[in-house]
Amino acid sequence: MEKVVFGVDLGGTTVKLGLFDTEGNVLDKWEIPTRKEDNGRQILPDIAQAVKEKMKEKGYSDENVSGIGIGVPGPVDSEGTIYKAANLGWGVMNINKELGALTGLTVKAGNDANVAALGEMWKGGGKGYRNMVAVTLGTGVGGGIIVDGRLLAGATGAGGEIGHIHVEDGEQEACGCGNRGCLEQYASATGVVRLAKRALAGSSQDSMLRSGEISAKTVFDAVKAGDTLAMEVAGKFGEYLGKGLAVVAGVVNPEIFVIGGGVSKAGPVLIDYIRKYYEPNVFHGSRNAKFALATLGNDAGIYGAAKLVLS
Amino acid sequence: MEKVVFGVDLGGTTVKLGLFDTEGNVLDKWEIPTRKEDNGRQILPDIAQAVKEKMKEKGYSDENVSGIGIGVPGPVDSEGTIYKAANLGWGVMNINKELGALTGLTVKAGNDANVAALGEMWKGGGKGYRNMVAVTLGTGVGGGIIVDGRLLAGATGAGGEIGHIHVEDGEQEACGCGNRGCLEQYASATGVVRLAKRALAGSSQDSMLRSGEISAKTVFDAVKAGDTLAMEVAGKFGEYLGKGLAVVAGVVNPEIFVIGGGVSKAGPVLIDYIRKYYEPNVFHGSRNAKFALATLGNDAGIYGAAKLVLS
Repeated sequence: MEKVVFGVDLGGTTVKLGLFDTEGNVLDKWEIPTRKEDNGRQILPDIAQAVKEKMKEKGYSDENVSGIGIGVPGPVDSEGTIYKAANLGWGVMNINKELGALTGLTVKAGNDANVAALGEMWKGGGKGYRNMVAVTLGTGVGGGIIVDGRLLAGATGAGGEIGHIHVEDGEQEACGCGNRGCLEQYASATGVVRLAKRALAGSSQDSMLRSGEISAKTVFDAVKAGDTLAMEVAGKFGEYLGKGLAVVAGVVNPEIFVIGGGVSKAGPVLIDYIRKYYEPNVFHGSRNAKFALATLGNDAGIYGAAKLVLS
Repeated sequence: MEKVVFGVDLGGTTVKLGLFDTEGNVLDKWEIPTRKEDNGRQILPDIAQAVKEKMKEKGYSDENVSGIGIGVPGPVDSEGTIYKAANLGWGVMNINKELGALTGLTVKAGNDANVAALGEMWKGGGKGYRNMVAVTLGTGVGGGIIVDGRLLAGATGAGGEIGHIHVEDGEQEACGCGNRGCLEQYASATGVVRLAKRALAGSSQDSMLRSGEISAKTVFDAVKAGDTLAMEVAGKFGEYLGKGLAVVAGVVNPEIFVIGGGVSKAGPVLIDYIRKYYEPNVFHGSRNAKFALATLGNDAGIYGAAKLVLS
């Protein structure tokens, strides 16, 4: 009998859904809006309905479906309990049970960054590895850690929250998490912009960055054009991230780091800046860890969610 | 049929052996010397002989023995391959296979610090928890990480090597690992002594530490006696270790830290100094992690080795 699995990536604006065979081939892919009204109480029923409609359309019975995997924007423990999803208005809830009751199917939930990491390991930049750290450099810095093929969820679902490791004692501004000096304040897209603005303000050096709006993209474009000040900014970014990942490696000793998110579009030059500070600061047992760019883009979440069910 | 398991803790001077029932009760406990001549080639045959003699003495056949667990002083991956044990003269070898061939029994090997962590989780300070970080503050700083009840070995057996995470950019002296500014340089027994000597040299302040030999014990004894300079030294120790463990928590999100090794004999005051710097620097998802002292002392290794076989 044909077996399929649903992979769901629940975001603040849209829910991405994928239908996969058990080998990880995409059979279908679509989106529905995330309805956040009433503290997001329509979200899971909407997902259940979307899944049921797709099953009907394709002629699948419950026996054809191995389950639904779902990545959600908040800390999720290994039993599928989410502790809070501020973006969605959700409080504590067991997603495996709630969505399971709505669909009659097996459900496995995980944190979205962790689930995306699993996707990259299965079909993306980390394919073939079993010990991996995924780093997502977007608006924030997310992380997902895979140990011996399994997601590291942590005691309260906060495993792999590497954006909030402390890397700078001198920081005056608060991070979104309330602390000061978190990795995210320097290595995210907004972090790179902050570093660039500080560099511009602290120097009178000529730079391409002095005209137009500054973004992580304009900074790394300027780096590629040989702009000295932009290269200094990239150096600071690389120092924070390289040293931070050296510490992460000291803890979990991965085979590979897979770097994704908007900032990673800068390409291989990003990895050069990271490695420059990673190598001299890491324990020798992890010095040969590989660095690769993520390859699945926005689809990493649905792949990983499907894999949650299959692994 | 009665089932038993052997737990072996292989050290640089002695091999500790324990015989356990499957509930973890100690039936027997003894030691043999570690013969390091000829690059340590007698070590595994000696252990095999010790096990076989004990089986004969107790009247056990191979069917009674679930296996031999062994902790060794070097990086060991999840398949039992040790990459190097400089202390013993060993190069790369698969211990599970070698000792298995010598005894005809199932063998599971792990890194000694990791195995001791497993022991503390099973029967010691971390009993009842499944997500734990064990920190051994001895001559060096060792670590053992348990995720969802399983040891985190890492890609090359260097998982949990938290003594070598980088915590200080300004360090001039090299750590034993070759890097500069490793946590071990400040939070080990020798690290505390270094901090104390630096504090004494950098100040003319009166202190109990100015007379007699300085050790981690004399420093924390002086702290308990209200010695101001010793309290500053303990504060620096707590700052390095507390911030370091905050980063570890940001990566693996444990339920509990279990602090062992010689320095931990200072008792609860140690945890006060650690928490003071842990709490303001850790991601909120791990802020409520517990701290406990290890309780098994030198027996943690044999307990954890036995548990390796049973888990």
